[in-house]
Amino acid sequence: MGADDSTATVRELGEFALIARINAGRAQAPGVLLGPGDDAAVLAAPDGRLAVTTDMLVQNRHFRLDWSAPEEIGRKAIAQNAADVVAMGAVPTAFVVALGCPGETPVAVIDGLTAGMWAEGARACGASIAGGDLVRSPELVIAVTAFGDLAGRAPVLRSGARAGDVVAVAGRSGWSAAGLDILLAETPAARRVGRGARAAGGDAPEAGLGTAPRIDALRTAALAAHRVPRPPYAAVLDALRAGARPTAMADTSDGLLADLAHIAEASGVAVDLDSAALADPALAELATALERDAAQWILTGGEDHAFVATWQAETELPPGWRAIGRVTAGSGVTVDGAGHAGPRGWESFSGAESPPVGDPR
Amino acid sequence: MGADDSTATVRELGEFALIARINAGRAQAPGVLLGPGDDAAVLAAPDGRLAVTTDMLVQNRHFRLDWSAPEEIGRKAIAQNAADVVAMGAVPTAFVVALGCPGETPVAVIDGLTAGMWAEGARACGASIAGGDLVRSPELVIAVTAFGDLAGRAPVLRSGARAGDVVAVAGRSGWSAAGLDILLAETPAARRVGRGARAAGGDAPEAGLGTAPRIDALRTAALAAHRVPRPPYAAVLDALRAGARPTAMADTSDGLLADLAHIAEASGVAVDLDSAALADPALAELATALERDAAQWILTGGEDHAFVATWQAETELPPGWRAIGRVTAGSGVTVDGAGHAGPRGWESFSGAESPPVGDPR
Repeated sequence: MGADDSTATVRELGEFALIARINAGRAQAPGVLLGPGDDAAVLAAPDGRLAVTTDMLVQNRHFRLDWSAPEEIGRKAIAQNAADVVAMGAVPTAFVVALGCPGETPVAVIDGLTAGMWAEGARACGASIAGGDLVRSPELVIAVTAFGDLAGRAPVLRSGARAGDVVAVAGRSGWSAAGLDILLAETPAARRVGRGARAAGGDAPEAGLGTAPRIDALRTAALAAHRVPRPPYAAVLDALRAGARPTAMADTSDGLLADLAHIAEASGVAVDLDSAALADPALAELATALERDAAQWILTGGEDHAFVATWQAETELPPGWRAIGRVTAGSGVTVDGAGHAGPRGWESFSGAESPPVGDPR
Repeated sequence: MGADDSTATVRELGEFALIARINAGRAQAPGVLLGPGDDAAVLAAPDGRLAVTTDMLVQNRHFRLDWSAPEEIGRKAIAQNAADVVAMGAVPTAFVVALGCPGETPVAVIDGLTAGMWAEGARACGASIAGGDLVRSPELVIAVTAFGDLAGRAPVLRSGARAGDVVAVAGRSGWSAAGLDILLAETPAARRVGRGARAAGGDAPEAGLGTAPRIDALRTAALAAHRVPRPPYAAVLDALRAGARPTAMADTSDGLLADLAHIAEASGVAVDLDSAALADPALAELATALERDAAQWILTGGEDHAFVATWQAETELPPGWRAIGRVTAGSGVTVDGAGHAGPRGWESFSGAESPPVGDPR
């Protein structure tokens, strides 16, 4: 197939040629014993178990083609699944992807999506895309299933937190929500000029940020964080390989408070966060410029795909982790000893029927 | 949660309550070491490998709620994935399901879908639904990933057929396509009166079948075959357990000719089918009554999810298998030595943008 095919539509190229194009020249990871082309793939499960998770991303619900490049969407789809695998204490080894798209989708969009998937799979410990399905649907739908090797260790559950443990995070919180807020503020302009709005975003009247280079840089960082989360896989996996072990762990997909609430409920404990430890001066600077609340981003913003874990108090926190609170007896999650007012995080069916993408409120 | 919740919508019940409802009282299969409720499930892989396959079903493309009950759709979604696993020579052990649906979807629809999934998982060798994802989407989208245990055997690939092998099938061909044709003929009535058309289908003027009880019974059988394929899993798995081994195998999802073409291409051989061996008197009787071509249904109809395999000539075919042709040197698939005119089977992006469900033409 020629590079010229990228200007064709999916219908023009056809299912089987597109599948061949997607898989051409790909080298499978060692954990994939049999890749695409048969009724099923065969994955290695060296310790006799596999961690497995699946997530579905729906166009205009979880991503927008006028907000993100196809490659960014592909990376995000893989990253959020890889983060779930790593949050179990497992090493990502492979992914399978079911993809639905309209017949008029440009092949270039599929090229971008799959390039992003392969790139993030490689970043997540050298994992590859072992197979998938390609069907027609009214809008883009991406369902990723991710696999991880527990390497002989017990999975790290949400239910192991105990009173006295330290709560710590690896990775940033709130930056994805900040990026989403910026995109939402730009939406009228984005609708008017399509993808061009992205390059010209800093000039959008809604943003109101003028030309301050410092704010522009923060703004760019927030947009990047929303478009492609960068879960700090190594902070978890290096710690586990070095023998450190959290008592409970999750990735922050729904929001820090919401995900800690899942841990607190599963463990039968309470969590109290220290707002001073959560402070992020750069994010606060951006929030001030945008007239937003940085604490709200940090506590309730979803899709950061950082890792939050509880550690026995005597454990020295591994590199990349910082303490943000304590586990206590009781139930629920508090900040500086008080309940947090307002929404806590993402819920799939809350809000209007056609909300802005990624809006957890 | 009360049974009354079935009259609520998905939005009214909410994501987390619905997930709890879906998983309430479910007993996981032995191959599921950790089920729903954490960042990932953990599956057993007793021989150090897992066969893995994924398929996406999109509403009004792969199923219609006015043609099939939710339980039937759930069964079909699992069956088509379980058939892929079995076609590799693996025993289904678990499934994960990513489900997208509108907020106004009745909880009763989700109840039916999940009941069907669990029922077919149990039929497929006692496998269970180990986890999933639930998101909002404009129409129902179901992405199933299925897992199978190879039980120490090499996977049965599409590429192992050799000249001289016997081609044989386990299960029926063409009945799903016949059911689809009946549904398509009834579509105006179905659109007019919704689900009621199903019970009253025999009276629909389009059907033109009068009240002949024999034809009505065949018609009912075809509709059932289309709504819920019944892959003969045991015909494959019992044969493998007894030490028999096909040289190549696939399930018939795209159509007998199309799926055999995949085997022929992967193996570098030709296949010639014997039309007399493929004849199905009951299906021919139904085709005559409907003024259709039974051979076209049998050769090109998709979604039967029977199994087609090649066996060394000296092998005694195991119970449930019947010979339908021969592998020869060359390439392509012929019937009685001649090429088959017309379309060969399903292709995801062929046809109009909004074709009738399941129509491979």
